[in-house]
Amino acid sequence: MTIASRLQNLGITLPPAGVAAAANYVPYVLQGNILIIAGQITIENGEKKFIGQVGKEFSVDEGKAAARLCAVNILGQISAALGGDLERVERIMRLGVFVSCAPDFTEQSAVGNGASDLMVEVFGDAGRHARAAVGVSSLPFGVAVEVDAMVAIKN
Amino acid sequence: MTIASRLQNLGITLPPAGVAAAANYVPYVLQGNILIIAGQITIENGEKKFIGQVGKEFSVDEGKAAARLCAVNILGQISAALGGDLERVERIMRLGVFVSCAPDFTEQSAVGNGASDLMVEVFGDAGRHARAAVGVSSLPFGVAVEVDAMVAIKN
Amino acid sequence: MTIASRLQNLGITLPPAGVAAAANYVPYVLQGNILIIAGQITIENGEKKFIGQVGKEFSVDEGKAAARLCAVNILGQISAALGGDLERVERIMRLGVFVSCAPDFTEQSAVGNGASDLMVEVFGDAGRHARAAVGVSSLPFGVAVEVDAMVAIKN
Repeated sequence: MTIASRLQNLGITLPPAGVAAAANYVPYVLQGNILIIAGQITIENGEKKFIGQVGKEFSVDEGKAAARLCAVNILGQISAALGGDLERVERIMRLGVFVSCAPDFTEQSAVGNGASDLMVEVFGDAGRHARAAVGVSSLPFGVAVEVDAMVAIKN
Repeated sequence: MTIASRLQNLGITLPPAGVAAAANYVPYVLQGNILIIAGQITIENGEKKFIGQVGKEFSVDEGKAAARLCAVNILGQISAALGGDLERVERIMRLGVFVSCAPDFTEQSAVGNGASDLMVEVFGDAGRHARAAVGVSSLPFGVAVEVDAMVAIKN
Repeated sequence: MTIASRLQNLGITLPPAGVAAAANYVPYVLQGNILIIAGQITIENGEKKFIGQVGKEFSVDEGKAAARLCAVNILGQISAALGGDLERVERIMRLGVFVSCAPDFTEQSAVGNGASDLMVEVFGDAGRHARAAVGVSSLPFGVAVEVDAMVAIKN
């Protein structure tokens, strides 16, 4: 089964390639076989979603949905970096998951699963990655979750 | 002196290989010569320790001990990734140290030394790494410290 | 135009090589073609600057200046790692920007631009990087901004 058909089965349409970064940096850098994806936030169709904190404005399940949306945007950037050919992904090496939350929130792992699950759904074993999930006091534009990635690319 | 004998001298028993990650991701990814270790928290013998914040429930010295415990778990994952052969470590390239603490806490560097010192004790010069240490509002399961790592592996 | 002359035009004097790290780790690791720079804080002429939080003690513009100072220190470490030859930089791959701020602060991207802009001013297209910018509850020594980096080096 191709990755494109998996995405279709999941009902995921990738955001258009070339969505500009929010600032004077680029959304990805492909250097040798290493692809670095900039921190992706909860933007859908150009609109920022999930403004608030997990454990406050949002439940853990909503936090998971926010992390999944970040991961969809990561897929969009990977696709843009690879000219649309997601089959060139060798391995999702690492996700960094930043969850905006109050000091008493302790379910960053559950939130991060929203992103982690999607990677495995799309890439199978190649989507199994190392991860660091932490709680932070705030994120750009007030979004609830930000996720970045390091990806190994086939030659 | 072998790394195994150094560990013995330090009285460190590595956690069993294959300790599962807390979520749908893997504790390490070895891709080419780069080994990425997922964020390790303060678990000992399967039990979560150091639940609370440094500078609040825990002193700086306790925070250092928490960071050292995270580093022991990093060693366990490196060992698992390398089939038990820690001699294959070329260089600890980077540690990321996340300290759960209040906004007025400023000794993240001292806390991080608990992890940094262990790496040098075990690997000597090959254990000398770059590092980022930051304070965060909360961590998974309410633990006080989380540390992740990037390691270069010999061919 | 050489990078040295760009730095001169920008009025930037690099901090002396070999500025020690604040703890038992090293300010950079060069492994193969990958250079990891430890988290750099707001130190100038050996003195810590910008003690406080952005959005509280410091405006967004001051936060940008703080991030730029961190980036100057990154340049100093890159230079030290490369024996002073900044022309060997192939690509700034990634910046990690940590902004100490209150939970209601949402302009981490604007703050991070202080570091991002400098990289492009100095390295041109090779300075265009992926980035993650997040808000954290506190940073070492109480500084307002910390920035780390991953850099690809020419053979």
